[in-house]
Amino acid sequence: MELLQACEQLTELQAKLSAFGHAMALIYYDGATTAPKGTAANRGQTLSILSRESYLLSTGETTVQLLEFLDAHKDELDAKQARIVEVAIKDIREMKKIPMEEYVAYQQLLVEAEDAWHTAKQTNDFALFCPYLEQIFATERRFALYCAPDMHPYNYCLNKYEEGLTMERCDEFFAALRSRLVPLFAKIKAAPQLDDACIHGEFCEAEQEKFALELMKAMGIDMDHCGLGTTEHPFTTSLGSHHDVRITTNYDKENLANSMFSVIHEGGHALYDLNSDDSLAYTLLDGGVSMGIHESQSRFYENLLGRSRAFIDFMFPRMQECFPTQLANYTAEDMYRAVNLVTPSLIRTEADEVTYALHVMVRYELEKQLMSGELEVKDLPAAWNRLYFEYLGVEVPDDTRGVLQDSHWSGGGIGYFPSYALGSAYGAQLLAKMKESVDVNACLAKGDFAPINAWNRERIWQHGCLYKPGELLERALGEPFDPSYFTDYLEKKYTELYGL
Amino acid sequence: MELLQACEQLTELQAKLSAFGHAMALIYYDGATTAPKGTAANRGQTLSILSRESYLLSTGETTVQLLEFLDAHKDELDAKQARIVEVAIKDIREMKKIPMEEYVAYQQLLVEAEDAWHTAKQTNDFALFCPYLEQIFATERRFALYCAPDMHPYNYCLNKYEEGLTMERCDEFFAALRSRLVPLFAKIKAAPQLDDACIHGEFCEAEQEKFALELMKAMGIDMDHCGLGTTEHPFTTSLGSHHDVRITTNYDKENLANSMFSVIHEGGHALYDLNSDDSLAYTLLDGGVSMGIHESQSRFYENLLGRSRAFIDFMFPRMQECFPTQLANYTAEDMYRAVNLVTPSLIRTEADEVTYALHVMVRYELEKQLMSGELEVKDLPAAWNRLYFEYLGVEVPDDTRGVLQDSHWSGGGIGYFPSYALGSAYGAQLLAKMKESVDVNACLAKGDFAPINAWNRERIWQHGCLYKPGELLERALGEPFDPSYFTDYLEKKYTELYGL
Repeated sequence: MELLQACEQLTELQAKLSAFGHAMALIYYDGATTAPKGTAANRGQTLSILSRESYLLSTGETTVQLLEFLDAHKDELDAKQARIVEVAIKDIREMKKIPMEEYVAYQQLLVEAEDAWHTAKQTNDFALFCPYLEQIFATERRFALYCAPDMHPYNYCLNKYEEGLTMERCDEFFAALRSRLVPLFAKIKAAPQLDDACIHGEFCEAEQEKFALELMKAMGIDMDHCGLGTTEHPFTTSLGSHHDVRITTNYDKENLANSMFSVIHEGGHALYDLNSDDSLAYTLLDGGVSMGIHESQSRFYENLLGRSRAFIDFMFPRMQECFPTQLANYTAEDMYRAVNLVTPSLIRTEADEVTYALHVMVRYELEKQLMSGELEVKDLPAAWNRLYFEYLGVEVPDDTRGVLQDSHWSGGGIGYFPSYALGSAYGAQLLAKMKESVDVNACLAKGDFAPINAWNRERIWQHGCLYKPGELLERALGEPFDPSYFTDYLEKKYTELYGL
Repeated sequence: MELLQACEQLTELQAKLSAFGHAMALIYYDGATTAPKGTAANRGQTLSILSRESYLLSTGETTVQLLEFLDAHKDELDAKQARIVEVAIKDIREMKKIPMEEYVAYQQLLVEAEDAWHTAKQTNDFALFCPYLEQIFATERRFALYCAPDMHPYNYCLNKYEEGLTMERCDEFFAALRSRLVPLFAKIKAAPQLDDACIHGEFCEAEQEKFALELMKAMGIDMDHCGLGTTEHPFTTSLGSHHDVRITTNYDKENLANSMFSVIHEGGHALYDLNSDDSLAYTLLDGGVSMGIHESQSRFYENLLGRSRAFIDFMFPRMQECFPTQLANYTAEDMYRAVNLVTPSLIRTEADEVTYALHVMVRYELEKQLMSGELEVKDLPAAWNRLYFEYLGVEVPDDTRGVLQDSHWSGGGIGYFPSYALGSAYGAQLLAKMKESVDVNACLAKGDFAPINAWNRERIWQHGCLYKPGELLERALGEPFDPSYFTDYLEKKYTELYGL
């Protein structure tokens, strides 16, 4: 085989995998947005066939030979090609350890589990979802055994979302957060509370959607390549390449902040995906490199920028245009205080910056126990409710607002949650570095995201998966990761806000 | 090869083709409904890859050998399997005559042409669309030459939508219509005109969408398996099987009848597709057999039922609930007369039953000339405008309301249009036969579609593609096709309405 020819074959292989990925992601997106409710089994049938074809393409003998040939010639490859071969070989070695029939059956299970979760959440019926979730955890444990028999099964899961992440690192990270956040949270609870009346009222879906589109444009999202949909649980997905990204949100008719901050959060994911270098389209390196880095961008826009005084000052007149009667008697400062109210709460996605990590820790502890077999899925609701009371001091009134609130587990996303807390901490350190060269507050006050986005594009976005997450982060920061940037930021902001 | 094993392989092959079909139809649907506007090239890339895979699957050596083996054993197959083999062999013989690269390039051209057509229609810019349309007609002529070198190229096109249809049969059919419709139209024009004020006014999209969903339910469409979207041009598509069907409509804020009748029309297509026998799912026989039969169902619901006095009497109180202020001062009889106003017009989809066939004839004449090479695409707008004046007596003010109005050509649907007129005529004869055993007007007056749908399911829908269109129609009718049922129906209805 000639090297040139092999490189062409690799390009073609990646284009095919991108096309299958496009089809499968769109079928998922359709199911979550507009598909009629009786059509899940039909999507399951198609997804099982497409995932089988995609599996065969990824792991077939031709592909293996091609990658081994390229791996043997890796010194002759450029950095991009070498990284593609490295990623592909890693994926293939993983995939080949999972028997194809089990892989395909799992894809179909996830479609049905998603459907069962929707119904279970709507009807507060954990028992309906329980058998699916048991199968999901059992499958993840089995796959961990196939792929990484020497590893703790939960470390296998963590690694899927953040290469190199372990329970040990998580325990240390969460302990660092806990030691600073728990006292801060206690002080805040003892202080006079902020008034968040201005985000409550009646906000019709059409007005909120119009505002959501304004927000996306304000953030500098390319609306020619990014769409907005409505789903139970907000998410971001790329279709085929970074040339087509979709975000979704959920409108709460009585609270304008829910959709607002979910749009900014998903918008952060979208900016990251949309801004891969064009040369990475239709390759394995297109899009974000890990969920930790992804969440560093989404939570950067959502909180560090979106919940800043400068951004709210800029955005408030536009909010008043969209909701003129509801916001007539409020000021930008009222809005700033309202969206930064710290309060023990039930729902992770609506949690404030201070308590957010505590919501994540509940899930982390439970996943650890479920993956090691210490906890059984049937006992999960009781364990969930116990930890919410212990960490956040709240009584969980029903499973809809408890263990059924998130879509991650029904989609097989075990090990994902720690990324949110890690990402928040990465983001705080990135902001500190960005401020060395960009006057972030001045940009936000003018609604000028260009210098901010340019910094992120340069340091993070354009690289796609060219570097491993740890390497990418250190290159962007110019120093090792340090979670105290995050706790410092929170202490400073909330000490001022609450007059502690 | 064992017969049983071969049959299993055939089942598997069809399931794969259905999965590819699902993915490609959904990508098209997404492009027409919610995709951001800069994403057409990305969809084109994925569609070109998936259509290539699907082509290879359909025409590959394994498939050819399998079908030849089954064809050699056709006496041992049941009727359904035998028909599947017949259909597959016909398709494959056709496809193999078209070089794969040309087939794939055509799929990509159509995605780009669709996009260009949208822009051209919006900006009244035929020149923008012209080069795409030239390539489309050139490709269709080339494919006709590959596949049916002994046939007139336009007959090749007609056959794709209605097996056995020829220009000769069309000429005869259209002449029969013309001889009765032109005098009827002249008499109507000379009579006092009907008042259609009640369908005009201000109707917001959200209210119209609510009403559209009411209509779908009233028609007996299974809403668990059928969705409603919004597109430039209404259409119906199945995703993977008859278990997931989508219809689309377009809302005119100043005219409630446009969306109403497009929903009933597409709803008729949906009922046909949704009601294939379940045993046909994921086979080549799933869904409607030809566009002529399809249009016989869509135009049956749209006109023969939807524009009947009995249905409007039933529906009017529900319309008043959806549009209380706009319809406060009107009666059901006002609505019946408004939706049956006969008037020379510019837009086919909004045309009345009497002039509709004249709109189709314009397209038929032009396609005939374009496919034979007598007319060049660049001269099409002038030819279009000339025929509209000759057949309908209207001056076409711009290409948006002229030659750019329909989506068919940009999608490669050359030869489709005659199906609309044929379908209308099939439908009138089917209604006459249905009335021998079902009191259709009594059902409509009660809003009870069950007996009507049961008759159509029994005679037409359940059979999918099990019979050829001509055979299916004759079995359903119990007699040969006769277009005078259609002209009789029109003369009777409009003589009464206009007091001729």
